[in-house]
Amino acid sequence: MSNHMISDEGENLVEETLEITQVFSGDLLELTVNTVRSASGSKAKREVVHHPGGVVILPVLSGDQGEEVLLVRQYREPAGKPLWELPAGTLEEGETEKECARRELIEETKYSPSNLEKKVELFTSPGYTDEILTLYLATGLEKLGPSEEVETPEDENLIVESFPTEELIEMARKGKITDGKTLAGLFFLTH
Amino acid sequence: MSNHMISDEGENLVEETLEITQVFSGDLLELTVNTVRSASGSKAKREVVHHPGGVVILPVLSGDQGEEVLLVRQYREPAGKPLWELPAGTLEEGETEKECARRELIEETKYSPSNLEKKVELFTSPGYTDEILTLYLATGLEKLGPSEEVETPEDENLIVESFPTEELIEMARKGKITDGKTLAGLFFLTH
Repeated sequence: MSNHMISDEGENLVEETLEITQVFSGDLLELTVNTVRSASGSKAKREVVHHPGGVVILPVLSGDQGEEVLLVRQYREPAGKPLWELPAGTLEEGETEKECARRELIEETKYSPSNLEKKVELFTSPGYTDEILTLYLATGLEKLGPSEEVETPEDENLIVESFPTEELIEMARKGKITDGKTLAGLFFLTH
Repeated sequence: MSNHMISDEGENLVEETLEITQVFSGDLLELTVNTVRSASGSKAKREVVHHPGGVVILPVLSGDQGEEVLLVRQYREPAGKPLWELPAGTLEEGETEKECARRELIEETKYSPSNLEKKVELFTSPGYTDEILTLYLATGLEKLGPSEEVETPEDENLIVESFPTEELIEMARKGKITDGKTLAGLFFLTH
């Protein structure tokens, strides 16, 4: 329509954080209630989940019959059921995003990538959580042999499967893929 | 690779919830710590955010120069900055997802849709939150006149802008769109 090059400064959208009260601190999450003031002066409360951040990996195999993508299927307590998702995981202390992507891909799929290309840093639900996932395209995948030991966290129980790109798109269109980061990853698979 | 028609029952992925302890209950969110037992018998704790759920709307305008999509730009306290996002919002009590989509689209953009087509119900971050967003494609958009009153919540301060599809895809590829539900929506715009 018109000017898309709006600067953050000129927008009058910025809110000022007046007060932060921590209400929970757990092993993974922290929760605060923040009092904010908008540019117009009105005050509001925001409940904010703090998450260490993580990665999501789009692992593309080049097979004889064309490209395939590795997904994992895993039970999700908040969903109350297993979901098909791109491999993903939470940043560990002292680890870079790229190191995390390599570690998680190997742990979850037993494939090691020769290339990891950063595509985007995405907010999973920026209305109430600061969680950022860095999405990597992983190519040059090599299957680790049975002699190569891979440590899998004890509480992760999952199934790995590869899907041709076209089948994946069809699954998404039919509502068989319901994980937000995976749908975001599919955008980058096809663009 | 092989059999993609795995049933949930046969997977041995399902976890049993043994205990739920509520640690926070706020205006928007609730947080519980759940003790779960996997099929193999190992126990683990899961921190779970409970959210009322909501909608995200992909509003497509058919202009003289082709399709354009409406985005809103809004400050996000957890991100600490304004983001470009598809219009979205939280379900109010007694409201269906479709009613919520119509209300939020009108409130945020002043456009009223004649068609709302459900595309998917997505989990924003199923590792720790039960938030589900129902994504609707909104077409047949009519701009409300200035005489038609629209109530906008006092604490929502936003900018509305329309973008040609190709520009939006380019923005996403360049990392200018970082909201997960919006990237997921772009997948459905182009598939």
